[in-house]
Amino acid sequence: MTATITISLDAMGGDDGARLVIPGAAIALSRRPDLRYRLYGDQAVVHPLLEKYPALKAVSEFEHCDIAVKMDEKPSQALRHGRWRSSMWRALDAVKAGGAQAAVSAGNTGALMAMAKFCLRMAANVERPAIAALWPTLRGESVVLDCGASIGADARQLFDYAIMGGAMARALFDIIRPTVGLLNIGVEEVKGLEEVRSAGQLLKEADLQSLEYYGFVEGDDIGKGTVDVVVTEGFAGNIALKTAEGTAKQIAGYLRSAMNRTLLARIGYFLARDAFERLRMKMDPRKVNGGVLLGLNGIVIKSHGGSDPEGFASAIEIGYSMVRNGLLAKINEDLVRYVPERTEVEEKIAAQAGAM
Amino acid sequence: MTATITISLDAMGGDDGARLVIPGAAIALSRRPDLRYRLYGDQAVVHPLLEKYPALKAVSEFEHCDIAVKMDEKPSQALRHGRWRSSMWRALDAVKAGGAQAAVSAGNTGALMAMAKFCLRMAANVERPAIAALWPTLRGESVVLDCGASIGADARQLFDYAIMGGAMARALFDIIRPTVGLLNIGVEEVKGLEEVRSAGQLLKEADLQSLEYYGFVEGDDIGKGTVDVVVTEGFAGNIALKTAEGTAKQIAGYLRSAMNRTLLARIGYFLARDAFERLRMKMDPRKVNGGVLLGLNGIVIKSHGGSDPEGFASAIEIGYSMVRNGLLAKINEDLVRYVPERTEVEEKIAAQAGAM
Repeated sequence: MTATITISLDAMGGDDGARLVIPGAAIALSRRPDLRYRLYGDQAVVHPLLEKYPALKAVSEFEHCDIAVKMDEKPSQALRHGRWRSSMWRALDAVKAGGAQAAVSAGNTGALMAMAKFCLRMAANVERPAIAALWPTLRGESVVLDCGASIGADARQLFDYAIMGGAMARALFDIIRPTVGLLNIGVEEVKGLEEVRSAGQLLKEADLQSLEYYGFVEGDDIGKGTVDVVVTEGFAGNIALKTAEGTAKQIAGYLRSAMNRTLLARIGYFLARDAFERLRMKMDPRKVNGGVLLGLNGIVIKSHGGSDPEGFASAIEIGYSMVRNGLLAKINEDLVRYVPERTEVEEKIAAQAGAM
Repeated sequence: MTATITISLDAMGGDDGARLVIPGAAIALSRRPDLRYRLYGDQAVVHPLLEKYPALKAVSEFEHCDIAVKMDEKPSQALRHGRWRSSMWRALDAVKAGGAQAAVSAGNTGALMAMAKFCLRMAANVERPAIAALWPTLRGESVVLDCGASIGADARQLFDYAIMGGAMARALFDIIRPTVGLLNIGVEEVKGLEEVRSAGQLLKEADLQSLEYYGFVEGDDIGKGTVDVVVTEGFAGNIALKTAEGTAKQIAGYLRSAMNRTLLARIGYFLARDAFERLRMKMDPRKVNGGVLLGLNGIVIKSHGGSDPEGFASAIEIGYSMVRNGLLAKINEDLVRYVPERTEVEEKIAAQAGAM
C-alpha cells in the first residue's frame, strides 16, 4: 500500500479564490484517491463550497484564516500584513511543520515567492529560488526555468538553475543525465549576454555528472524539445512562456474560424473530430498549469491566477508527482554536491585568466 | 504612372546565399513588376543563376564583390575585412548613394547592424537602432521591436523605440494614433524591470500626439493583438519572436500527426483541405520574414538567414512597402519632433523628484 500524500491549499488565491480551488481539489482527488488536503481560507466562503463535495470534505482538514493576500498587493505589503495569519502563509507553514508535503496557491506570484522564502527558507547552497514550468514539446516535455521568480540572473545563478532544473528533469522524466541548454539569442558562441556566456563556460568546464550541458538554445528550440532543460533568467523566461501560450491560443482561433468557414470544412471537421479532440488536449494550457518553486526547503506550486478548476487540479497533480518522485531530496542532494564544483571551476577560470 | 522602386540585394547573405536571393528576387518581381534591383555578389555564383531568370536579369544591375561576410563572423571582424568591398556593404552603400531606396540582406545580423550603422549612420536623435518585426495577430498585424538589434535598453531607448514603432505602424496600418504597449511580466504597475517602469512613466507623461500609450502588456498579448506596437529590449524581443515561431511549428506538427492517425481523420482532412490551406497560409512564417532596421538614414531589411526564396521575396516586399509608404520620412519626422518632448518630460520628472 502506498502512503497518502497531503497537499496544503491556499483556498483564497487566484481570481476566483475558493470557487477555483475547492472544485479543483475535488477533480484532482477523483483522479488521485490517495490525496489528502489541508485547506486554508475564509470559513464563510469555503464551508458552503465544501458541502457540495462530500468526498473532498472527507479527506480535508480546514483551518479558518482572516486574511487573504490580494492579487495586486506588493510582496512587501503582503508580508507585512499577511505573515503568520493569511491563507497563503498558513498553507506554506503546513509544509514547514510537516503537516503537508507540498503547498499549492493560485495567488499573487510575488507575494507567494516572498512568503515562501521567509517561511520555508532557501535550500542549502541556493542564492535565489526559481519558478520552473513543464513545457510540452514535439518530443515530450521539457523543464523551463526561471519563468519569473526574479528579474535578471548572473552566471552563478544560471548555473544553479541548471542544477535544479536538471534534478527536476531527472525526477520527472526518468532520464539519468538530462540535457541542459542556456536560452540565448543566436547559437554562435560570440553572441548573447555576458552572463549567459559565462554560465555556459562554467557548465562546460564543470561537466557535471547530473546533467549534460548542450550549449546555447534559441526560443524556437523550446517547442522542438532540443534539450530536456532550458535555463534562462526570469524576465525572458516569463515572456517566452506567455508568448507561447498566446501563440497557441491564436492558432486555435485561426483553426476554429477556418473550420467554420465552409460546409465542406464543417463536414471534414465533424469526421475528424476525434483528431481535433486529441489536438485540443495536446494544446490545453491547463494541463501544464503549475509553476514549481525550486530552491526552497519544501515543495510549492504556483497555479495560474486566472485558471479554472481543471487547471488548478493540474497544479495539484504536479505537486503530487513531485512528492511521489522525491523531487526535493534529489534537488537538495544535487545542490549540496554540485554547487561546490561550480566554485572550484570559478576558481580555476579566475586563475587561468590571472595567468594570462 | 507610379515610379519604380529600386532595392539593393546582398546576393551572398543567408545559409544558401545566391541560391536563396536570386530566386527570391524573381518571385518578388513577379508580384511587384515595378521593382528594380541592384545585386551585389560573386560573379561566378550569381551570373549562372541570373541566366535562369531573364525577367529578373532585365531589371537588375549587377556588381561583382570579392568578399562575402560569413554567417558566423563577429561584427568587428566583418567590419574590418568587409567594409567598402563586401556584398553586404555595397548593398548598403547603394542606399546611401541614392541608387537604391532599400537594402535587403539575409546575412549575419550583427554584421549587418554594425555595417548599417557605419555606412548609413544613425538618424537624427537616435541613440541606437532597433529591429522591428511584423507580427501576425488575431486582430491583424502588430509591430514588435526590438527583436535583437541590441541586448538591454534603458528607459530613453525604450521610449525612442516606441516613437519609431509608432511611426512604422502609422505608415503601414493606416492608423492615425497607434496604441503602444511595453512588454513586461505582470500587468500591475508594481511589477517588472526598473527601465520598463520608467519608460512607462515617460510615455504616459509625454502623451505624444503620434501614439497612444496603452501600458504594460504580457507575452500573450502579442498574439492577441492587444496593441498595435509592442516595445521591448532586444534579448526578450528576440526570445519572444523565436518562441512564437517554435510554438507555431510545434502545433503544425501536432496537427499533422493528429490528421494522419485514423482513416476518418484523413477523410476529414481531405474534405476540409481548403480550410487547412488557409490555416497554413495564416501560419506561414515566411510571410512575415523580414526584420526592419529602424533608426538609420536608410531602409534596411534583415531576412532570416535560413529562409527559402518565398521567404526572401517577402523580405523584399516588406522593403518595397516601407518605401511606398514613406516610412523613413515619417520616422525621421517623429524622431525630430518627439525626442525633444521626451527630454522635457525627463526634466519635469527629475524636478518633481527633486522637489519632494
